[in-house]
Amino acid sequence: MFFETHLELLRAAAQANRTRVAWTGYAPITPPDLAQADAVLATFDGATLALSSPTGSVITADEISPYTGKALNVSYRAPSVDQALAGAAAVAATLRDADIERRVGVCLEALHRIHQRGPEFAAVTAHTTGQSLSMACSGSGTNALDRGLEAVAMAWSAMTRVPGQVSWRQRFGKSEVTLRKRFRIRPLGTALVVACASFPAWNAYPAILANLATGNPVLVKPHPRSVLATALAVGVIREVLTEAQLPADAVQLVVDTAEAPVAGQLATSPQVRIVDFTGSPTFGSWLERNVPNTLVFTETAGVNTVVLDSVSDLSAAMRTLAGGLSLFSGQMCTTPQNIYIPDAGVRTDAGVVARDDVVAALLSAIDDLAGAPRRAAAVCGALQSEATLHSITSLTDAAEANGTLLRRPVPYVHPDYPQARAVTPLVVRVDPRQGDTLPDGEQFGPVAFLVDCADTVSAVAHATASIRGHGAISSYLYCTDDAVIDEVADAYADAGASLSANLVSSMPMQFAAAYSDYHVTGLNPAGNATLTDESFIAGRFRIVQDRRQVEGA
Amino acid sequence: MFFETHLELLRAAAQANRTRVAWTGYAPITPPDLAQADAVLATFDGATLALSSPTGSVITADEISPYTGKALNVSYRAPSVDQALAGAAAVAATLRDADIERRVGVCLEALHRIHQRGPEFAAVTAHTTGQSLSMACSGSGTNALDRGLEAVAMAWSAMTRVPGQVSWRQRFGKSEVTLRKRFRIRPLGTALVVACASFPAWNAYPAILANLATGNPVLVKPHPRSVLATALAVGVIREVLTEAQLPADAVQLVVDTAEAPVAGQLATSPQVRIVDFTGSPTFGSWLERNVPNTLVFTETAGVNTVVLDSVSDLSAAMRTLAGGLSLFSGQMCTTPQNIYIPDAGVRTDAGVVARDDVVAALLSAIDDLAGAPRRAAAVCGALQSEATLHSITSLTDAAEANGTLLRRPVPYVHPDYPQARAVTPLVVRVDPRQGDTLPDGEQFGPVAFLVDCADTVSAVAHATASIRGHGAISSYLYCTDDAVIDEVADAYADAGASLSANLVSSMPMQFAAAYSDYHVTGLNPAGNATLTDESFIAGRFRIVQDRRQVEGA
Repeated sequence: MFFETHLELLRAAAQANRTRVAWTGYAPITPPDLAQADAVLATFDGATLALSSPTGSVITADEISPYTGKALNVSYRAPSVDQALAGAAAVAATLRDADIERRVGVCLEALHRIHQRGPEFAAVTAHTTGQSLSMACSGSGTNALDRGLEAVAMAWSAMTRVPGQVSWRQRFGKSEVTLRKRFRIRPLGTALVVACASFPAWNAYPAILANLATGNPVLVKPHPRSVLATALAVGVIREVLTEAQLPADAVQLVVDTAEAPVAGQLATSPQVRIVDFTGSPTFGSWLERNVPNTLVFTETAGVNTVVLDSVSDLSAAMRTLAGGLSLFSGQMCTTPQNIYIPDAGVRTDAGVVARDDVVAALLSAIDDLAGAPRRAAAVCGALQSEATLHSITSLTDAAEANGTLLRRPVPYVHPDYPQARAVTPLVVRVDPRQGDTLPDGEQFGPVAFLVDCADTVSAVAHATASIRGHGAISSYLYCTDDAVIDEVADAYADAGASLSANLVSSMPMQFAAAYSDYHVTGLNPAGNATLTDESFIAGRFRIVQDRRQVEGA
Repeated sequence: MFFETHLELLRAAAQANRTRVAWTGYAPITPPDLAQADAVLATFDGATLALSSPTGSVITADEISPYTGKALNVSYRAPSVDQALAGAAAVAATLRDADIERRVGVCLEALHRIHQRGPEFAAVTAHTTGQSLSMACSGSGTNALDRGLEAVAMAWSAMTRVPGQVSWRQRFGKSEVTLRKRFRIRPLGTALVVACASFPAWNAYPAILANLATGNPVLVKPHPRSVLATALAVGVIREVLTEAQLPADAVQLVVDTAEAPVAGQLATSPQVRIVDFTGSPTFGSWLERNVPNTLVFTETAGVNTVVLDSVSDLSAAMRTLAGGLSLFSGQMCTTPQNIYIPDAGVRTDAGVVARDDVVAALLSAIDDLAGAPRRAAAVCGALQSEATLHSITSLTDAAEANGTLLRRPVPYVHPDYPQARAVTPLVVRVDPRQGDTLPDGEQFGPVAFLVDCADTVSAVAHATASIRGHGAISSYLYCTDDAVIDEVADAYADAGASLSANLVSSMPMQFAAAYSDYHVTGLNPAGNATLTDESFIAGRFRIVQDRRQVEGA
């Protein structure tokens, strides 16, 4: 049985969730080479996948590799909204009545098999999202699997904190009453998981598996231009469900098109009781406001700020920051965007460095990265969407027009894919005190605003105000005074934001560790779903009890 | 410090929440005698209470004793909606920054002081709600305190499962990165607790204290005709907050009138992030649908069913059922309403008893209770509201007109208060197969419908259909076959309802034990808030983290 097979892993994950020390459930995945990746894509070229029993029309998804510019040419025999809902309803009772260990076992085995197929998943992920193959093995590979396992372990811990039964005895007046009570875990209802185009696994695995572990049938709706990696994951889960003698339709893939999206219709169906959404703030906040009486979990985006106060080694910090701006071409919800530099410059172990020199150091670090093709390719990957490139071009033109342009987002030269939608960071320099304006909210892609500010205090005030208005998922500070870090952390916490200080290392600054880092606080506009706190789990299941009086006990 | 004083109690409560065995944190409260109760009321006659620092107009509440018919004549210097919200905002940071133990300590000490003042609270509760003095000491006394303590312990357990800090170390490439991480509990925001007229403490204590323990400022809005008992509780909490050097306005009393209600305005204020409501299904479902992006916890009402299949001792079962119908004049959300009796009668140890004889036994048991004034007074109490009496009269007239009336709800003779709004159960007999209709949803007050049905299977089908449509909070079965109980429990569970079987004892059938019985499943229309599962707690707080890299560690 799958549960027993993976029980040791599950226990270790549950323990890591409690201690929050560094831990991983999955060995590193070795990236495929280019030929292997091409071979993976070739196997799907022209294929038609059916990942639900109810099947409606065939949709050929608009999936185009950001590296080759070629269509993946994969079709999906996808259910209509009504068919998908009916399919979920049809399996609900069986899934509900399966015991917890069977459902949890399916989740664990599915994670295991996805891990085993890591290189294949990485190839597909890279050619749909634009992630580099190495990132597809880590961020969308082991890290995503760890976040999935984290959620399964949290769900298992929560469910097993409810005892299965108890003999209850109490005196009422002269007589003692004994009741035999049972407590049973029951799912809330059909769940919808909406994944985003650029990072579909990291948020979707936790949502899908938390739902499945707690007994809720899941409809998975990937972004219409980034379907295949999610389809493969759904396929694995369906395969494991079947082997566990559970209905495959406990998880169904729903595919739509950009022209005829179905997420809103699904989310507002009375049958759908849980929605997990990763994507744009606009649709996320629409869901939060227009889908009442439903558990709505959102992770959208915000303005991630960096305050430069003081550092030991400026070059090291700028290398880290350049890496943070470049990583996956700024298409992560944790990418820094607004970088505050005080008028007095930045204090370092080698003395104060003037602001212009700090700026120069950052630009130089970006150029160094962009100028090394193999490294640039591994770090930057490619832009998932042509629309992001247009948006960056517009921002560049505007900055050039108003004299704030510092660095053009010129493409780096991809060593393997000359057609890649490659880009390096756009850097703009603004001074709000001079009337320069910062755009509202996140600018998707590698876009950095260097913000001149009076000092650290005013930088923090400006940054936290932007967080209150637009949200933030990750915030950064460089400061050598621990007491000041405490104060700044308090200010960010009061704005509902977490803070990372002094990240200068080979760890990407936006790295969020499963089992340790709580991702999204739920206290600012960037989303309400925390990976993974108890509120991400608790409402997905409820408890029904029965009690019967025991005579003469 | 209050936390240390009550730590042993808190630990025991947390343990009881896990094991769900019988346990109580509070010794029984001795009811006041009539003179003592009168003396309590006299101390408030003409008083004006101020239970918030921001104070607006003085409202003399429309509180009339269901026993004496006299006005309590208590006024409240209550804040306006804007004042209350501003008052909550003003204290939010201080409450948030107080450590968990201080806030939890306040909750525990407040429960302790309310318990110490048990007889005084009971007198006020009786003369506002109509509960008997003995019930006011148990249901609104120790049981409500236990439910409050249960919620505090659940909140404490949930918060302490998050470690305060961790040293996290992981290798990235050639270097090892050490991060010192802190995890801090943060409240969601201003909370509104709306209490009901007839049972204000039982649901409000858990909501108020869960909010307070997790750091959310609370606005408590009692029913305009049942304010004083809640006001006293708020007063105690404010007194303890002050002694703990926390702002008293962390809990404020908001008083409105039936003519100018403010709950909807408060609930939809963007500042209010949590709403706990106990009351009518109409307003509860309005809240569920019209207050998006807010944690909404509801407990309303449903159709509580009883299926009579078989019993050992029919008389004992009918005595229990008569008590259940009479207890607090049917004004509890757990009161049975629709009682199914099969065509073939009910099997007993003494042979099958025909339906007419079962009916006669039930009516006889009700009459026995109603005819014993002291016992009737202790069990039935009085009707909180004149409107309930009107509704019962209408139902009686309708039943008389269509020939379904079995028993008139004649008043019992209250031995101490001849003016009491006393009533005994109305019993109506219907056969849906003959075209008789059952009213939609709960009929508040002592109203029982005896429903003729073909057999147990059809009774369960009819009952669970009504639960799917109208909800249920408690459901009952009498059946001597354990395997059949399992089947019926499954059917009720599938309808999202809990089930109690074969309750025949001195324990009131609707008794729900804190720490053991989950109250409200959240899986049917009778509400979404379970006392007390983890979903009642989890979202009331979130976690912000900070992490800083440790050099050379």
